[in-house]
Amino acid sequence: MQPTVVELIARKRDGGTLTADEIGRIVRDYVGGTVADYQLSALLMAIFFRGLDDAETVALTEAMLHSGSVLALPAVKGIKVDKHSTGGVGDKVSICLAPLVAACGVPVPMVSGRGLGHTGGTLDKLEAIPGFSTDIPTADFARIVGDVGTCMIGQTAEIAPADKRIYALRDVTATVESIPLIVASILSKKLAEGIDGLVLDVKVGRGAFMKDEARARALATALVRVGTRAGKRVVAVLTRMDCPLGNAIGNSNETREAIDVLFGRGPADLVECTLVLGAEMLVLGGAAATVAEGRDKIAAAIASGAGARVLERMIEAQRGDPRAVADTSLLPRAPRVVDVPSPTAGFLVDIDALELGLTAVAMGAGRTRADQAVDPVVGIELQKKPGDAVAAGEPLAKLLVREDAHAHAVIDRVRAAFRVGAERPTLPPLVLARIDSRDAEGA
Amino acid sequence: MQPTVVELIARKRDGGTLTADEIGRIVRDYVGGTVADYQLSALLMAIFFRGLDDAETVALTEAMLHSGSVLALPAVKGIKVDKHSTGGVGDKVSICLAPLVAACGVPVPMVSGRGLGHTGGTLDKLEAIPGFSTDIPTADFARIVGDVGTCMIGQTAEIAPADKRIYALRDVTATVESIPLIVASILSKKLAEGIDGLVLDVKVGRGAFMKDEARARALATALVRVGTRAGKRVVAVLTRMDCPLGNAIGNSNETREAIDVLFGRGPADLVECTLVLGAEMLVLGGAAATVAEGRDKIAAAIASGAGARVLERMIEAQRGDPRAVADTSLLPRAPRVVDVPSPTAGFLVDIDALELGLTAVAMGAGRTRADQAVDPVVGIELQKKPGDAVAAGEPLAKLLVREDAHAHAVIDRVRAAFRVGAERPTLPPLVLARIDSRDAEGA
Repeated sequence: MQPTVVELIARKRDGGTLTADEIGRIVRDYVGGTVADYQLSALLMAIFFRGLDDAETVALTEAMLHSGSVLALPAVKGIKVDKHSTGGVGDKVSICLAPLVAACGVPVPMVSGRGLGHTGGTLDKLEAIPGFSTDIPTADFARIVGDVGTCMIGQTAEIAPADKRIYALRDVTATVESIPLIVASILSKKLAEGIDGLVLDVKVGRGAFMKDEARARALATALVRVGTRAGKRVVAVLTRMDCPLGNAIGNSNETREAIDVLFGRGPADLVECTLVLGAEMLVLGGAAATVAEGRDKIAAAIASGAGARVLERMIEAQRGDPRAVADTSLLPRAPRVVDVPSPTAGFLVDIDALELGLTAVAMGAGRTRADQAVDPVVGIELQKKPGDAVAAGEPLAKLLVREDAHAHAVIDRVRAAFRVGAERPTLPPLVLARIDSRDAEGA
Repeated sequence: MQPTVVELIARKRDGGTLTADEIGRIVRDYVGGTVADYQLSALLMAIFFRGLDDAETVALTEAMLHSGSVLALPAVKGIKVDKHSTGGVGDKVSICLAPLVAACGVPVPMVSGRGLGHTGGTLDKLEAIPGFSTDIPTADFARIVGDVGTCMIGQTAEIAPADKRIYALRDVTATVESIPLIVASILSKKLAEGIDGLVLDVKVGRGAFMKDEARARALATALVRVGTRAGKRVVAVLTRMDCPLGNAIGNSNETREAIDVLFGRGPADLVECTLVLGAEMLVLGGAAATVAEGRDKIAAAIASGAGARVLERMIEAQRGDPRAVADTSLLPRAPRVVDVPSPTAGFLVDIDALELGLTAVAMGAGRTRADQAVDPVVGIELQKKPGDAVAAGEPLAKLLVREDAHAHAVIDRVRAAFRVGAERPTLPPLVLARIDSRDAEGA
């Protein structure tokens, strides 16, 4: 006789393990309605305390993945690789990264999310491009990836519906912060893209979901281990998210900054992040033998303009105006720009990414509830980054607003997020660690 | 701003404490429908892992208590004391205990339960008495306790409805086995009787809810500590429940055996249990200065027949036939009685209470679901108890059945529950420990 769901909850509660069949049955019966919300939430809380081992996490990932359909990309040749970031402030990397990787011959089928809370979302940023649509039928998605090399869409109803329901339940039952549950949620959605490889950008720090390095490393290691067990090529990179990435925080301005990278005029940290992640994607995709070679190829795709051309073709395929790539003045702009002057002279020591992310949400660039709309033009443009010298009265940032009054409402908060000191700070490296499947198995 | 329920779940999950106001709000909002089942079940699982401190447990007890009405017994003079047992096999003590205590001048308002699983329930046993009703209006309950000294009813819809709903949720989410949740559930129901004192019989062993002594002691200590903090006089006694209590397992036969105690002809262990618990109740109720004096008074109420007279009056007040006390042949009997002979000679070493409890349920004396009916006449009568000499072929037990075939279906199972050995065993004492409020505070 099969154990009842109550017996399975009790087993996990008492530190036992569930079989792949049992986990599959729980997910199916939850979607089917014979396992109740209150039973699943009790199980999720038991998992919060007891964890899941790798086999259980793989089983949960696959059960959620197969609750929907997996995108089939039979016409797309080559090893398909995507990137997933755990989210940060100013993280617009996907928009320049996917075209560069595709330009180097590795197809990038990309299903992205929207912003929620202090972190922005790639879909919101892309939709600042006039006419651009992220709502593309599955068949067209496959064709665009094949033709152009990359396509960026939103999560459809067919992608891992069990994850969608379970995530909504975790959100209201304080069971979000569990590493195996996070791993299964991320991987079930990404594996539904029909990819062969995945590079994970696990953000660490004040502006990230994971505030401390040990937790971030544990998450990265679990993602690599479980993804590898699920049969994929997986690598994770731990990158700092204490300060915003790049200078733009918003939607239209972040897309403009990502385009800057494709023309060799991006800010140093954003370019570095793109090179690091792109190199890993090329290695996974078989287009580079080493990370160093991959890095050179991404740099060459910037220098040649090949990445910019892929982005133009992708925008065109997704019904947007491709001229916005060569002429970013076609992207919408805020009618008013208000400076945030530095109160003192010295060196910029620190910028609080979380505080600026939350301020951008308050300005209308993000959302606190999933059903809110975002304003594409409002946001913040950093004028100084840590290590820069600052004169008193010199702008630390510019506020992009609809009306000056909106800037005055947040200017003190933005100023307080910048810390100016007497000495030039030593800047930490962007990349904290790299974890591949051999590292993860040893962990 | 008040924390949201998700924040409260997260706080408990992370080992924090909830205030009495917060606990009160959760219970009210759960009953009111704005805290969902899935949120409460996640909180219950977090409590399973993190526990509740005494102040939190008192708050939960009082929140559940005040979700309904507290029985008012203004016309009843004296210190009102009840007994609660955590349940066992053959535990019919309430039926003889309450009349004896009442006969000694301490009023006993008693709200009892029905059997579920391997443990029987006092209500099912009492209903074997022709005409007896446990469904008595609240006003009549108060009057009967005042006039007769005791009355035994079932839990009404007004008694701790939040506990009823929360218990049902715990039952289907594997969150039953949490000491603070058990404590709050027991105390909220008992405090709703309007009592001043409570004696707790915490059963330990194979046939009990608590299988090991350390857990049982922890439960007893928590019950005494929390009950004392809630302003009541509370004492707990840990008693063994490895073998059935007394000789009768069933309903009508258990009532008959409880009546036997009132006439001085009860089995030794059942009489001892009655004396021990009765003595504690008299001390709490102010009718005895010491436990020894209380024990003497209960023994005297047996010898004088005063307890039997109270039971007669209680049965009459509850519309039953009071002649069944003096003449237990008026209680219904099984049409067929089948012996279970001993396969070997020796000494009876052990009787598995759990196994016999489950067998009695299979015979129809109990229920596995709350909506099942019980058969009052079927059951098991032990003919030997541990320490007794047994000849080969001599009956170990008699099976009370409707048809011989029903006995044949269970006879091997019953026989296997008895263990006969070559040497007379040393019998452990019935009472393992006594815990009063001073012991509990020191624990």
